[in-house]
Amino acid sequence: MTPALPESLQIINLGIPTFLPGLALAGSRVTTTAWKPPARGDAAIGWAAARLTADTAVDQANTLALSRLTASRPVLIGTARAATLIPALSERRLLHAGPPLDWKRAAGPVRGALIGAALLEGWAPDPASAAAALAAGDIAFEPCHHHGAVGPMAGIISPSMPLWIVKDPATGRQAYCNYNEGLGKVLRFGAHSPEVLARLNWMGGELFETLRRALDQLGGLELRPLMARALQMGDELHNRNAAATGLFTRQIAPAVARSASAASAAAVFDFLGANDHFFLNLSMAACKLACDSARGVEGSSICTAMARNGSDFGIQVSGLDGIWFTAPAPVVDGLFFAGYGPADAAPDLGDSAITETAGLGGISLAAAPSIVRFVGGTSALALATTRRMAAICAGEHPEFTIPALDFQGSPAGIDARRVVDLNRPPVINTGIAHREAGIGQIGAGITAAPLACFEQAISQLASQRFGVI
Amino acid sequence: MTPALPESLQIINLGIPTFLPGLALAGSRVTTTAWKPPARGDAAIGWAAARLTADTAVDQANTLALSRLTASRPVLIGTARAATLIPALSERRLLHAGPPLDWKRAAGPVRGALIGAALLEGWAPDPASAAAALAAGDIAFEPCHHHGAVGPMAGIISPSMPLWIVKDPATGRQAYCNYNEGLGKVLRFGAHSPEVLARLNWMGGELFETLRRALDQLGGLELRPLMARALQMGDELHNRNAAATGLFTRQIAPAVARSASAASAAAVFDFLGANDHFFLNLSMAACKLACDSARGVEGSSICTAMARNGSDFGIQVSGLDGIWFTAPAPVVDGLFFAGYGPADAAPDLGDSAITETAGLGGISLAAAPSIVRFVGGTSALALATTRRMAAICAGEHPEFTIPALDFQGSPAGIDARRVVDLNRPPVINTGIAHREAGIGQIGAGITAAPLACFEQAISQLASQRFGVI
Repeated sequence: MTPALPESLQIINLGIPTFLPGLALAGSRVTTTAWKPPARGDAAIGWAAARLTADTAVDQANTLALSRLTASRPVLIGTARAATLIPALSERRLLHAGPPLDWKRAAGPVRGALIGAALLEGWAPDPASAAAALAAGDIAFEPCHHHGAVGPMAGIISPSMPLWIVKDPATGRQAYCNYNEGLGKVLRFGAHSPEVLARLNWMGGELFETLRRALDQLGGLELRPLMARALQMGDELHNRNAAATGLFTRQIAPAVARSASAASAAAVFDFLGANDHFFLNLSMAACKLACDSARGVEGSSICTAMARNGSDFGIQVSGLDGIWFTAPAPVVDGLFFAGYGPADAAPDLGDSAITETAGLGGISLAAAPSIVRFVGGTSALALATTRRMAAICAGEHPEFTIPALDFQGSPAGIDARRVVDLNRPPVINTGIAHREAGIGQIGAGITAAPLACFEQAISQLASQRFGVI
Repeated sequence: MTPALPESLQIINLGIPTFLPGLALAGSRVTTTAWKPPARGDAAIGWAAARLTADTAVDQANTLALSRLTASRPVLIGTARAATLIPALSERRLLHAGPPLDWKRAAGPVRGALIGAALLEGWAPDPASAAAALAAGDIAFEPCHHHGAVGPMAGIISPSMPLWIVKDPATGRQAYCNYNEGLGKVLRFGAHSPEVLARLNWMGGELFETLRRALDQLGGLELRPLMARALQMGDELHNRNAAATGLFTRQIAPAVARSASAASAAAVFDFLGANDHFFLNLSMAACKLACDSARGVEGSSICTAMARNGSDFGIQVSGLDGIWFTAPAPVVDGLFFAGYGPADAAPDLGDSAITETAGLGGISLAAAPSIVRFVGGTSALALATTRRMAAICAGEHPEFTIPALDFQGSPAGIDARRVVDLNRPPVINTGIAHREAGIGQIGAGITAAPLACFEQAISQLASQRFGVI
C-alpha cells in the first residue's frame, strides 16, 4: 500500500488543527503556525484588506502619510490657558479624552474628572450639582481630538487650564496638551477632592506663570532631539518619561532661575523632581502634532488617532479623516496596586495612545524593558513586541532609534490593512483607573487596541475606493 | 585497517591548532575553543593562580571583600576645598591620577595639567617656571588614591579646588573627587590656557558656593539609588552619565533655587545643562568609596583599584593593600575626532577606571549600548562584553541591575585569579587625551587593563600565602 503522503514531505500547517492528527499518522514532519484567516475570518473584510493591500495607490498614499508623520518637527513654543487657544472653550464646555461620549455612558473616572473640572471652573458649588449640570447638558463636553488637543486618562481640559503649545515651524500646525499632575489622587483618574483642586489651582497659577516666563525666555524648545535622546535612555515616552523629564528639566532650569522668584523656581523644581511622568504630556502633544500632519491623505490606511474615553476605543485613519471607528474599550491586563484587581478597573482610558499612534509607547517597547519587567515580562519580550509591531507599521522613524535593536528606527505609521490582515492589534502601554470616580490609579499594564475598530476602517476605506464590498 | 579514532568521536580542542589537520583527516567532528594556557603560558604564575583558585580561604576572603564592596552606601554629604579635607595638600603639593609618577616620566597631558594647577594656585607666574618648579621637586605630586581621592584623566587636585565628599554612614568612611569641567579644552586633558584657568576659578567660586549651600540645605543625597536608576537609563556611569546628570539636576535644583541668587542658580544650571559628564566625578567618588571598603581583607584577590597615570597602569588587590602592580599604560583603541589618530594619543590615563573596579563602566557595557555604537559595535557586543566580564568577577551587585540582561546584577568584584586564569583583562571605557600638553581630548574608546598587572599581583599573593613559588 502506498502512503497518501511521501515520507519525506515537510509540511507547514497554517494554523488549522484539523489536519494535524492525519498528518501525524502519516509520519510527516509538520510545522504549525499561529496563522488565522484575516479579519478574524470575516470574508468580506478579509477581501477588503486584500484588495487594499494589492492597491499601489494605497501604498503611495501611506508613504506620503508616513513621510509627513515622521517629518513632523515639534517645537514647544509656549504655554497658554486653554480658552485663549481653543475658542470653543470660552463657553461652559469641557474637553475629554477619546471619541465622543454622553454622560449616561460615561465611566466613573470620566464623570469624576468632569465634575472636578466644573468645580475648578466655579460652574457648580458642589459635586452633586456639577453632576446634575453635566447630566442635563448644561455643561457640554467634546473630544480633545476635535480641537487639536490631547489629554491623558480622562483627559479633561477646562478653559482656565494651561496647555502646552507645540508647533511645527515648517507647517505652522499646532497641537496642545494639558500639564501632568503627577501620580496619586489626580483629576485625570477621576479624583476631585479639595487637594486635587488645590493642586490644579497651583498648576494654573505659580506653575503656569513660571513655565510661561521660562519658555518666553528660551524662545522655543526642540522636542524631537530631546525625545530621540530619551529613547536611548529607557523611555518609550508613554508609560516611562523619567529620562525625558530629566532632559527637559536640565534644558529649562536656567530660564526658570532667570525669570522666576527663588520661591517659585524652587516650588516648580520640587514638582518636576517628584514627577517622573511630567514629560508625558509634552510627548503626547508632540505625537498629536505628528499624527495630525498625516491626516487627510486620500486612500491612506495609516492610523492617525487611537483614543479611549473609558467606554469606547476609537481610531481614525488618514484617508477617512475625522471619522471615528469605535468598539468597546477593553479592560487592561496589568499589574494592580495592593488591594485592587481587574474587577475594580475602569475600561481602557485616555488620549495617551497617541504616542503609540506615532510609533512610541508600546510600539517601541524594546526601548524600555523596565516597563515589561513591571508586569513580569523579560527584556526578550520587549524586543519581540517591537519586532511584532514593525510588521503592522508602514516604516520606521528616521530619528527615533532603539539601542537594543541596534539602533533600528522605531516602527511608525500603523497600517490598518496589516492590522486586519495579521489580526495583530497595536500594543498600548497604559495606566489603569479605578472604575469609580475619585479613587484614582490602581495599576498599569499593557493592552491592545480592539481589532474591530481597524476592521470597520478597512471596510469603509474599501467601500470608498471600490464601491460596496 | 582500524582508524586511530572512532568515527563518531566528538572532540573539543582547547585552542591548540597543531592537532587540527590530523583530526580533520580522521574525519572527526572538532569544536575548537579560544582557550590559552593561564598566565599567557607562564607556568609559575599559572600554577600560582591554580593554587589560589583551589584555596577556599581565598574564596572566603573574596566573599567578604565583595560583600563590603557591594554593601557600600555612598551619600553625597557636601563639598569642600581639597586643602580642608586632605592635610597633605596644605603645602606645595598636588595630587594626580594613577600610581606614583615622577616628572621625567610624566606624559604630556599630565605635565600640562600639573602646570595648570600650579598656575591656578599662583605658585608660578607662567607655564615655564611652573614646569621648572615641578621638575625640581619644588612642587610635589602624589597619587589621589593615596589620599582617599580620585580624579579623571590627569586627575589633578590642587589645594583650592572643591571636592565632592561622599560618605558611607555605616562605616564613616569618606571618598573624594574633584568637579567635572565638561568637554573641550580642560585641565584634565592637559590644557591650561587662560580660558581653562578662568573656568576653574569660576568652578572654585560661584559653582562651589552654590553647590555647597544647596547640599547643606539638602542635608545629603543618596547616590546609590540614583546610580541604580541611571543604569536603567543607558548610563554605565563611566563614559555615559547623561541620565545620572539629569537625575542629579532634578534632585538638587530645588535646593539650588532656594539657596542661591537667581544669577548664580542660572549659571549653575547652564553648566549642568551643557555637561552630560557632570555626574562622572560623583560616580567615581562613590566607586572609590565602595572599592576602599573592600581593601585589606587578608588573602583576597579582589581588585580594589585600577588607575593610570599616562605612563603606567596600576592595580591593587585587597589582600595586598597599598601595593601597586604596574605595567606600561596601553594606547586606547578608539574612535578619534576628525584630524587625529592613534599616533597623536597619550597612553591610557586617569583614575576613572575606579568605575570598572566597582563593576560599572566597561564591565557593565550591556547597560549602555550607545557607547558601543560610538566605536562601531553592536548592542550584541555590549551584551557579550558584560557576560565575558561576569566570568572574571566574584559576584553581582544586588542593586545595580542591567535591563538588557533581564535585570541581572552588574558583575562586581574583579577576581585577579580569574583574570590570570582566563587571560581575560577587565574592559575599560575611556576618553583619549592628546599626547602633548594643552590640546585636550581627541577621542574615546574601549581598552583593557594589562594582564601583567594581574599576573604580578597573583604571583605576590601566592608567595605571601604559600612561600616562594
